[in-house]
Amino acid sequence: MQLPRFAPVDTPDSLLVDAVSLANEMADAAAEISLSYFRKPMDVQNKAGDNLFDPVTLADKKVEQLIRSSVAARFPAHGFYGEEGDNTNHGQNHIWVVDPIDGTRAFITGMPAWGTLIALFDGEQVVLGLLDQPFLQERFIAYGGVSSLHNKQGVQKLSTRTTKDMSTAIMHCTTPDMFTDPKQLISFNRVAQEFAMTRYGGDCYGYALLAMGFIDAVVEADLQPYDIQALIPIVTSAGGVVTNWQGDSAVAGGAIVASANPALHEQLLRRLNQ
Amino acid sequence: MQLPRFAPVDTPDSLLVDAVSLANEMADAAAEISLSYFRKPMDVQNKAGDNLFDPVTLADKKVEQLIRSSVAARFPAHGFYGEEGDNTNHGQNHIWVVDPIDGTRAFITGMPAWGTLIALFDGEQVVLGLLDQPFLQERFIAYGGVSSLHNKQGVQKLSTRTTKDMSTAIMHCTTPDMFTDPKQLISFNRVAQEFAMTRYGGDCYGYALLAMGFIDAVVEADLQPYDIQALIPIVTSAGGVVTNWQGDSAVAGGAIVASANPALHEQLLRRLNQ
Repeated sequence: MQLPRFAPVDTPDSLLVDAVSLANEMADAAAEISLSYFRKPMDVQNKAGDNLFDPVTLADKKVEQLIRSSVAARFPAHGFYGEEGDNTNHGQNHIWVVDPIDGTRAFITGMPAWGTLIALFDGEQVVLGLLDQPFLQERFIAYGGVSSLHNKQGVQKLSTRTTKDMSTAIMHCTTPDMFTDPKQLISFNRVAQEFAMTRYGGDCYGYALLAMGFIDAVVEADLQPYDIQALIPIVTSAGGVVTNWQGDSAVAGGAIVASANPALHEQLLRRLNQ
Repeated sequence: MQLPRFAPVDTPDSLLVDAVSLANEMADAAAEISLSYFRKPMDVQNKAGDNLFDPVTLADKKVEQLIRSSVAARFPAHGFYGEEGDNTNHGQNHIWVVDPIDGTRAFITGMPAWGTLIALFDGEQVVLGLLDQPFLQERFIAYGGVSSLHNKQGVQKLSTRTTKDMSTAIMHCTTPDMFTDPKQLISFNRVAQEFAMTRYGGDCYGYALLAMGFIDAVVEADLQPYDIQALIPIVTSAGGVVTNWQGDSAVAGGAIVASANPALHEQLLRRLNQ
């Protein structure tokens, strides 16, 4: 499953305003579904067979269905790229890139580190990113160069840390088990030892902690486009940098590194590729 | 720093009622302090020197001070055993075993997996355990053989899962970095591979997930008495088992294994010690 890439299409302000409004509506409706399944008994399907435990919950499917049909109704010319396949790309137009419940392992273990991820992709860049964590009642939205947290206290503009050196920085990673390529694991272990602290179990929420300025970096591998796209503007519009391990665009997923600022990112890329 | 052990002293119902009431009051007051520091800029001191990053926040110290003085005022004959030292044991009497903020790494990275842990130890067993997670507004309390969750929805009696085999079970562990003894790391890696899923980053909240029935086991090492005591009755009164890796009492800390039920615990102990 390959994400279509093309020259960026124009995103007029009016379209962006409509897209933000739709993304918020979809996140509201998604939250109702996901919270009705979170911390309740549920059927967990094993999508990937016996060897790899990759649960997909019913909530996951219902939320994707909801978002897919909402996009089709409001923006019939737009494409859709989600976790459940059946993706569409109506020519050279915007594509909604969606992970209905990112962090399904966190979800089924009752840990509020999962989130609904909604991105709007212009063919080259993500022009709108949304991460919703309804159990914590936190919504992260980024567009037009601003990244903000919406919660019960109101709206707060986010900015990343100024930490310049890995030796005083905190890194997050969902699990060390995600580095199935031995070369990647060696690189990860090398940089993990150079950080002042490495924490696991963040899932998509690790990127939120980075955007809020509580940690300094996220290092991961094996991500799909829908795992990372929404998080890119949330981190970068707060001052951070998100690329793949080669320093190229992160929109296609793969091995990803996100940092609080360009200086730290440069150091981290250098050490990852040493 | 050795936890005093002695023959269990009598815990009359009237003492237990007073102790539960005090524990709740202390947790309320502790929450006010800890939330005033959580997700705020703070000074992090490096307690353990340059090699080991073991942050102690100002909140940690203030909460312990509060709990220590509350215990001294209400139960002057009782002992106190906390993270900050200066422990007391007034002869053969109850000891309060307290971690003001367990999971300081989660705390300083903005992740709501930390908690205030309060235990009342009778010399042999823990007769009262409390875990408070004020950001999630969740309080877990266990005494008199009942483990319950108190939150905005009310009070809910907890019970663990019936999963009988590791191959279909989910295990939690704060971080694989906690196994500094190579023999322990080998044992941990062996059992981690046999679980259907291993998750990291739980801190004390992993035991809460176990008591709530969302995961099946916690495997850890290098715990202090105050890291585990409050969690023992929260898990065991919900149907689980908590011991050290040798199958003996967990009250002194060390390498700890907690399981959803006796059958799973037996299997897990056998595989850990193989």
